Amino acid sequence: MFVAFQGEPGAYSESAALAYFGEGIKVEPCETFERVFKVVSEGRCERGIIPIENSVAGSIYQNYDLLLQFPLEVVGEYYLQISHCLIGIPGSSLKDIKKILSHPQALAQCDRFLKSLEGVKHEPAYDTAGSVRIVKEMKDPSVAAIASRRAAEIYGMDVLTANIENTAANYTRFQIISRRREDPGKDAKTSIVFAMKNQAGALYRALSVFALRDIDLTKIESRPLVGKPWEYFFYIDLAGSVFEEKVQRALANLEEYTTFLRVLGSYPRFAFRDLVKAAEDHD
Amino acid sequence: MFVAFQGEPGAYSESAALAYFGEGIKVEPCETFERVFKVVSEGRCERGIIPIENSVAGSIYQNYDLLLQFPLEVVGEYYLQISHCLIGIPGSSLKDIKKILSHPQALAQCDRFLKSLEGVKHEPAYDTAGSVRIVKEMKDPSVAAIASRRAAEIYGMDVLTANIENTAANYTRFQIISRRREDPGKDAKTSIVFAMKNQAGALYRALSVFALRDIDLTKIESRPLVGKPWEYFFYIDLAGSVFEEKVQRALANLEEYTTFLRVLGSYPRFAFRDLVKAAEDHD
Repeated sequence: MFVAFQGEPGAYSESAALAYFGEGIKVEPCETFERVFKVVSEGRCERGIIPIENSVAGSIYQNYDLLLQFPLEVVGEYYLQISHCLIGIPGSSLKDIKKILSHPQALAQCDRFLKSLEGVKHEPAYDTAGSVRIVKEMKDPSVAAIASRRAAEIYGMDVLTANIENTAANYTRFQIISRRREDPGKDAKTSIVFAMKNQAGALYRALSVFALRDIDLTKIESRPLVGKPWEYFFYIDLAGSVFEEKVQRALANLEEYTTFLRVLGSYPRFAFRDLVKAAEDHD
Repeated sequence: MFVAFQGEPGAYSESAALAYFGEGIKVEPCETFERVFKVVSEGRCERGIIPIENSVAGSIYQNYDLLLQFPLEVVGEYYLQISHCLIGIPGSSLKDIKKILSHPQALAQCDRFLKSLEGVKHEPAYDTAGSVRIVKEMKDPSVAAIASRRAAEIYGMDVLTANIENTAANYTRFQIISRRREDPGKDAKTSIVFAMKNQAGALYRALSVFALRDIDLTKIESRPLVGKPWEYFFYIDLAGSVFEEKVQRALANLEEYTTFLRVLGSYPRFAFRDLVKAAEDHD
């Protein structure tokens, strides 16, 4: 199976793909998120994996927008604990490091660790895995990168220090996209997007279609529609799948209140005990 | 009045501060968001301005977290249309540009424009305004930066092309923080954060305290609590202020359903017609 992800080999998205599908897959690195959607749409990859929200940085609207542009289905979800490592060339050591490269977001997420290193310069790079590649090419034992442990392994580099992020509570939720809908079985979630005019009580009425049928919500987010200040998109994840009659009836009911409704997909619910285990592996 | 913002002179946060308070204020650039909260808490600045959500990138959870850590009040909001310019040293021109610097997010937001320029390299920088400073220091007519028009003015640089972002629908919402609560008057909004255990229908019950009192919601967002997979934070903005009895009663009612509740502040509602005007000024 071919799975497309955005980034260079060693990116966190690639780690998520391998953890979700197993090491047997072939991965297809793509330069942009749009390209991930494209290669899956064209059938060149059977699946794509996209980050949809991060516990520190929030929802990634760009991928929600692409889910509306491309006729693809969400068929899975995965939560990856983000754990940054300081990575240098083989034989280098922390005390010799004078310069550290990484994506500005990763540098910011490790700024407490970076402040503890006196006289060390930081330099921004396009992405975490890419900064490891640059350090490898420089062959300079005084330069290091911040990226995943997997990026260090791929490029044959040394992990100088692990778990250097400010907060361990940093995880990214990924969704798996495919051209075909699949029955997710019993313990499922469904992602939907809908638009509504903002009248007092409109959202409450919309949520009644789930609450009065005892359908649990696991995510809700409003997003103002630019240019239409009083209209909103709502992103909701609910317990259950579109293969269940109760959910079908709730969605039919919801359509009475919305100006737009799209089901992004139904998929097996991620078991959070797996996230905890992934974190322990890193320690 | 002293107003603290995160970033270098010419940052978008500084533009928002000047647009909100007028050109008469003194601005205090801070290296981090935490520093903005600190200088306002200590009384060294009367106000701070923080980005709280972006229409492309989503909510900025880091600032929501800081609002819970510091005993400050939200007393205002402002929406700024983000419009990127290509900026070079005086006398340079677009056809000579061989390299462009900016924050990776700004480079990504302008990638359609960048793809139209053949053979031009891009390089990441820490922030947009900082990339203008670097280009000014280089004095090289073949290097340009991507930043705000204001950043070009501050550094005495030329705008080579304006409005180079992929989508005009790119705006950032800012909140103003202060040590003291202020009566926002009639057309107000209130921002609150609360936590709830995720039981089916719990959110619906919580929202009833607003819907049944005809209190309009303008934002709702759930955020999973890391380490507590079935508990959520909810961020809600509602129409009205804590100086109104109806809102006070709704919040007292809400406390019956929540495990945690904090009012971040009440403030005058931003008039969206001002956002449209700001965009037209840029064209």
